[in-house]
Amino acid sequence: MSNKNEHGVKLSDSTRVEAFSDGVFSIAITLLVIELRVGPHEHGRLLPAVLHQWPALLGFIISFLYVGIAWMNHHAVFARVRYVNRGLQWINMGILLTTALLPFSTGVLADALREGDLADQQVAVALYALTAGVMSAAWLPLFPYLRDNPHLLEEGTDPAYFHAQRARPWTGVTLYLFAAAVGAFYPWVGLLIFLVMVLYHALTSEGLQDAPVLGRLFGGKDQERRP
Amino acid sequence: MSNKNEHGVKLSDSTRVEAFSDGVFSIAITLLVIELRVGPHEHGRLLPAVLHQWPALLGFIISFLYVGIAWMNHHAVFARVRYVNRGLQWINMGILLTTALLPFSTGVLADALREGDLADQQVAVALYALTAGVMSAAWLPLFPYLRDNPHLLEEGTDPAYFHAQRARPWTGVTLYLFAAAVGAFYPWVGLLIFLVMVLYHALTSEGLQDAPVLGRLFGGKDQERRP
Amino acid sequence: MSNKNEHGVKLSDSTRVEAFSDGVFSIAITLLVIELRVGPHEHGRLLPAVLHQWPALLGFIISFLYVGIAWMNHHAVFARVRYVNRGLQWINMGILLTTALLPFSTGVLADALREGDLADQQVAVALYALTAGVMSAAWLPLFPYLRDNPHLLEEGTDPAYFHAQRARPWTGVTLYLFAAAVGAFYPWVGLLIFLVMVLYHALTSEGLQDAPVLGRLFGGKDQERRP
Amino acid sequence: MSNKNEHGVKLSDSTRVEAFSDGVFSIAITLLVIELRVGPHEHGRLLPAVLHQWPALLGFIISFLYVGIAWMNHHAVFARVRYVNRGLQWINMGILLTTALLPFSTGVLADALREGDLADQQVAVALYALTAGVMSAAWLPLFPYLRDNPHLLEEGTDPAYFHAQRARPWTGVTLYLFAAAVGAFYPWVGLLIFLVMVLYHALTSEGLQDAPVLGRLFGGKDQERRP
Repeated sequence: MSNKNEHGVKLSDSTRVEAFSDGVFSIAITLLVIELRVGPHEHGRLLPAVLHQWPALLGFIISFLYVGIAWMNHHAVFARVRYVNRGLQWINMGILLTTALLPFSTGVLADALREGDLADQQVAVALYALTAGVMSAAWLPLFPYLRDNPHLLEEGTDPAYFHAQRARPWTGVTLYLFAAAVGAFYPWVGLLIFLVMVLYHALTSEGLQDAPVLGRLFGGKDQERRP
Repeated sequence: MSNKNEHGVKLSDSTRVEAFSDGVFSIAITLLVIELRVGPHEHGRLLPAVLHQWPALLGFIISFLYVGIAWMNHHAVFARVRYVNRGLQWINMGILLTTALLPFSTGVLADALREGDLADQQVAVALYALTAGVMSAAWLPLFPYLRDNPHLLEEGTDPAYFHAQRARPWTGVTLYLFAAAVGAFYPWVGLLIFLVMVLYHALTSEGLQDAPVLGRLFGGKDQERRP
Repeated sequence: MSNKNEHGVKLSDSTRVEAFSDGVFSIAITLLVIELRVGPHEHGRLLPAVLHQWPALLGFIISFLYVGIAWMNHHAVFARVRYVNRGLQWINMGILLTTALLPFSTGVLADALREGDLADQQVAVALYALTAGVMSAAWLPLFPYLRDNPHLLEEGTDPAYFHAQRARPWTGVTLYLFAAAVGAFYPWVGLLIFLVMVLYHALTSEGLQDAPVLGRLFGGKDQERRP
Repeated sequence: MSNKNEHGVKLSDSTRVEAFSDGVFSIAITLLVIELRVGPHEHGRLLPAVLHQWPALLGFIISFLYVGIAWMNHHAVFARVRYVNRGLQWINMGILLTTALLPFSTGVLADALREGDLADQQVAVALYALTAGVMSAAWLPLFPYLRDNPHLLEEGTDPAYFHAQRARPWTGVTLYLFAAAVGAFYPWVGLLIFLVMVLYHALTSEGLQDAPVLGRLFGGKDQERRP
């Protein structure tokens, strides 16, 4: 799990942090399926009971993509990180903690869409939006921290990259607070905002489109630069 | 989790994608056991309650093998992939998302085989077949994408390999749609088709039998070519 | 996740198999805690409800150690394996499948010890012993297969090692069948056999005591041989 | 998952132990969210039902940080470990086993804070403190063992480091026993002690602040020493 240089010294302390984070992300994303569950039903009534699950399926897909995007961003950022110190460990722990909360809010949302009345759905959509906002907020300290600690980075990484990324989590926090406010009155509009947010994140996912290697590949000009 | 060349630059971006995917596959495959659960029963009636679980055990085994085969194929394909770009990330996310759905359909199937009437079993088998079909469909874009993006591949990989594999997921989609249609009337015939499909996948698992290293090994001629 | 030689070719296909197996083992071992669960109880009656969990705690510990030992053996064997082919993949899948079943039998055992009458406990102990026996049986084909496929092994590995190990899973199968037979009449004697088996496995865990690196370390003579 | 030297021999047996441990830690930490669960409630009463979850959320956060700190310490120690032998395997297994127990005690604590009366909360806080104490106790043998087995360590690691760490788990055991004793009478004081303990662990987390690489980074003097 760690590379060693020719003197047998472990160089890349970020590798085990990535492995642990991969574990948390992959468990959080797979646990989401637990909220998909056909409840008790009368004999012969499985079909309507399954069809009744569509809001839970929708919540599963949105949350899956959301955690998936968070993982991709994590991947893109840590591809530039070589060492971790205690400050970075704690920032990372905050990102993982808030991500691990998403299955809870997804479950509440799915239940409310299936079984709740309007008041319940307003609460559930607002809770989900708040959780997503907290997930975005957990990324806020990451970019300034890496910009100010260039000795943690891979050689050749421009700290200005992290400066350029700093606006992104603020956008997330702002839009999810907006979604919480709207969803507290019109839950289905809130849901629509979630879908738009996932699409927005997917199309502009930070770091991926202009990561040194990935960007090159995406631009199709990597072949000749390949080492 | 990533190899670096002599200049300290991370080369192999596919490694963390493999690690994350390994996590999702291994959790999805292990979560299947959660559906095996002896319900409430009277004192002294554990034996019939356990024996009553055999359809759930059958569903567990089929789904375990199915996810296991999907992982083997993933392994075989990504052994040829060196870099990932955003397009490949999203194709991979689709494969993981549909795989993560299988424990849900397995649980529905197990419940219907244990407790449901014929109508429930018809629905459950069709749902399971549809999920398996969607899992196959998620692999459809992978092979053309890799054939058209040879700069993502390991050096020495023949893009024609991916061209040759493209028919396989179509077979899966077609046969699972057929199983859904049959299972909607004769659920036990649908189950039989699942068993046949697992066997078919196992015996012809794509990539494994003719992967460069594995194929050589399997043919027993690798010893002399070993580096 | 994979090492490459100087030509950029992935050599060590066994690494991703190890990663996937690590995932399944670590999830199976951690899922065991789900069976530890204080049921509904009256206000102020948490203490007896917690104390009532001790058979579940005992089952948790036995199963945790059992999966832990299985993982250690897996580790010891695959430290000698460099390549995997399809046959080895399927043998490994069988080991993982049977390991993933253990949380189910552990849950049944814990429930029976807590709530069941003697008949239930007889069934639960026999079921647990059968599961453990099947887990042992899954290891039966591994050692002959590796002995007969020396091209899969790390250089310098003596195939005779695997020949010497072949008796071990047979011991497990035999003793667990014995435990099933005894436990079907005297469940607490069956439990005692499980404890003895864990101790036996722990003290003689295959491969660990005479693995090339580990054995040297254990013998305290490794310092001078260190590369 | 393992590095090989130029002769193709696997050197670093600690890597798979780290991978397996990462798996157990990341699953234990993510499983904690399962205890966060809005119970049945009347239509339109989701908001009070969610707000009612705050003790479960508090328990989730404390346990998340506690497992996170345990993982960080594990990371810091194993960054200095190159080989594992059977003794170290079993010590590590004890650390993992006790960590895997924490979701159980967290669930009992959350339930008692939500639903229980004072007597239940006294029991739950004491149980949680005992579990945390056992988790600390599992680390007791680690430091003397590594000090006495320097051949397991990375080259250049001073065994005196482990000698200096030996007091830390004793502090944990003592303080958690104290928290158990206090919490058995005044549960909320016990909770306060948990919060203080998490803060204490976070600020002084063993190994992190003076790990060779990390300490250098933290001191800001690593740039020039970078290999």
